[in-house]
Amino acid sequence: MSITRVHNFSISLDGFGTGEGQSREAFFGHAGERLHQWMFATRWWQHGGSGGIDDVFTQQHDRGIGAEIMGAGKWGYPGWHEDPEWKGAWGPNPPFHTPVFVLTHHPRPSIKMEGGTTFHFIDASPAEAIERAREAADGKDVRIGGGPTVIRDFVAAGLVDHLHVVVVPILLGRGVRLWDGLEGLEKRYEVEAVSSPSGVTHVTFTRTSG
Amino acid sequence: MSITRVHNFSISLDGFGTGEGQSREAFFGHAGERLHQWMFATRWWQHGGSGGIDDVFTQQHDRGIGAEIMGAGKWGYPGWHEDPEWKGAWGPNPPFHTPVFVLTHHPRPSIKMEGGTTFHFIDASPAEAIERAREAADGKDVRIGGGPTVIRDFVAAGLVDHLHVVVVPILLGRGVRLWDGLEGLEKRYEVEAVSSPSGVTHVTFTRTSG
Repeated sequence: MSITRVHNFSISLDGFGTGEGQSREAFFGHAGERLHQWMFATRWWQHGGSGGIDDVFTQQHDRGIGAEIMGAGKWGYPGWHEDPEWKGAWGPNPPFHTPVFVLTHHPRPSIKMEGGTTFHFIDASPAEAIERAREAADGKDVRIGGGPTVIRDFVAAGLVDHLHVVVVPILLGRGVRLWDGLEGLEKRYEVEAVSSPSGVTHVTFTRTSG
Repeated sequence: MSITRVHNFSISLDGFGTGEGQSREAFFGHAGERLHQWMFATRWWQHGGSGGIDDVFTQQHDRGIGAEIMGAGKWGYPGWHEDPEWKGAWGPNPPFHTPVFVLTHHPRPSIKMEGGTTFHFIDASPAEAIERAREAADGKDVRIGGGPTVIRDFVAAGLVDHLHVVVVPILLGRGVRLWDGLEGLEKRYEVEAVSSPSGVTHVTFTRTSG
């Protein structure tokens, strides 16, 4: 059965999934790439990287995924909707290789990229977006790609089956929080935490039946 | 040399060190005892408890400590200053066994308890409180006992040498946050994280020289 999954979603120890002051030059605002350094050091990211616990978690990102849903802020910088020629922040061959549904109040025609990624722009509720993505995924799972607001909205709506969060031991102090409004979430999931020698802690939420 | 230490300070995954709605009947508000269950299962807390990683961390609480500083909210329920007969939330033989300095805008005469604990009530800045506690500690270390506001204030003032925080995998959603206003704290400390089979993650901040 097709499930919905979040992978490798990195937050600071104080709970921010992105920094303050996002722009075309600074996609994560003042956080820079500090939330993702752990990932760049893996074999999944680069030849010669580490094959340990961080790597085995990152590898789950692609396996069995047939479509992704992401927020407008993951696709591009604030204001991209006024730039009709722009094709997103992910380069000519984006690392998704499936249909990707971008949630936006400013839909535009779909864009076919290299490597199997096609961006579709939809103005839809979380439930509607999952329905669209499921059709496109053709029996495979749907990844909820972020940012923090999108993940929080889908989790709050009870639409996420597996949630993998990576707590990075830095204090960002400001930005967009992941956990707001999710009191008691642990009652609906099996929660596990495991620390890595890299310093991050992987926390997984696996939905319990019923 | 005498240093300042925080031990076993438990927060939820979303960063709350105590819940909302604290009262004489509910010292941690809606959090109840959920932030401290991991501790109750240790040998340090009870005969027959576990002697693993949670236990070795808890044992650091007492070793080499000569005095504690705590906030008014750790000593008693909101409004205790209107109850002159009350002797605090910690029973006749409190688990401190040293002088304890209670930060309050409502000082009262010191109270000598069983087992070596004496409560002193002082209206003082963090730096002044540490000076008082150091004198009383007679060369030993000073523990900053909490709650979250007190720890945050002392950390922000650069007055904490060792900080041990325990992240409990629950989402409280509301209450008092530990990390507010501490952006970039990791630059002044060596940070380590290690998960326990109990589900909690121990995060330690050790001050780097200079």
